[in-house]
Amino acid sequence: MKRTAKAHWNGNLQEGTGEISSQSTVLNETPFSFKTRFASGTLTATNPEELLAAAHAGCFTMSVSATLEREGFLAGDLYTEAILDLDLPNRKVTGIHLDLRASLIEGVSAEAFHKIAEDSKANCIISKALSVPITLNVSYQ
Amino acid sequence: MKRTAKAHWNGNLQEGTGEISSQSTVLNETPFSFKTRFASGTLTATNPEELLAAAHAGCFTMSVSATLEREGFLAGDLYTEAILDLDLPNRKVTGIHLDLRASLIEGVSAEAFHKIAEDSKANCIISKALSVPITLNVSYQ
Repeated sequence: MKRTAKAHWNGNLQEGTGEISSQSTVLNETPFSFKTRFASGTLTATNPEELLAAAHAGCFTMSVSATLEREGFLAGDLYTEAILDLDLPNRKVTGIHLDLRASLIEGVSAEAFHKIAEDSKANCIISKALSVPITLNVSYQ
Repeated sequence: MKRTAKAHWNGNLQEGTGEISSQSTVLNETPFSFKTRFASGTLTATNPEELLAAAHAGCFTMSVSATLEREGFLAGDLYTEAILDLDLPNRKVTGIHLDLRASLIEGVSAEAFHKIAEDSKANCIISKALSVPITLNVSYQ
C-alpha cells in the first residue's frame, strides 16, 4: 500500500519558497519556508517537523486504542501531544516525547494501562519507522 | 526548538474516530479513522503515513536547495514525490522512495546534481530521524 506526498521548492534556502501536498489533499500546496520552519514563537505555516510529530501523535493514539481492544477493553478519550525536539545548530531531531492523557477504563489498572501505552510507543507503525529516541509520559485518571 | 502536534482518539480501532492538530494549525482537528487510513483507492482523509511522506518530501526538497547553495548554485524548480510503502499485514513501513525532478542549473553537471541529491537523501533532518530504507530517483533535465 502506497502513501504519498509531494513537495515543490524554488530558490535558495533562506528566501526560497515551497509547497507541500498530500495524497488526501488535506495538505494542498500548503506553503512552507525556511523562516517559518525554523522560527521561534507562534508558527504561521507548517514544517516537516510538526508533520512528523502529527504523524506520530496520530499513529500512537490509534495504536493505544487497538492494543486496548486486543486486551478486551474499549478506549475512552485518549489525548496525545507529541513534542519533537529539534537541535537546530546540528540539524537533528534529538527525540520525540509522547504525552498521553487518558480517562479511566473500567477493569484496566494503572499498571496495565501503562504497559499498553509502552507497547504502542514501541510498536506503532510510525515509532517503528523512526531512529530517534522516543519517551512517554502517561496520565491515566 | 520544539515542534508539536496533538491527536485525540475515542473508541475502538475499526469504528473509533480521531482528530489530529499541528502547532501551526495547518492541521486543525483534522479527522482520521481506521477506514480512511487503510483504505485503498482515493483517500478521503489524512493519515499518519501520508503525513510522514509529506514531512520527508518537504524536508528533502528544501535540503537539495540548501546543498546546491553551499556549492555556490541557485536551485530552480525542484519537485519531489515521496512514496511510502506500507506493509499492512505486518503493520510496517518498508521504505520511502523519493522521486526528484529538477530543471537544469547552469554549471551543475548531471553527476554533480546526483551527488547533491544523494547527500540530501542521506542527511536531511527527516531522513536522519528515520530507520527505514530510503531510495532516490533523480530526473535532471
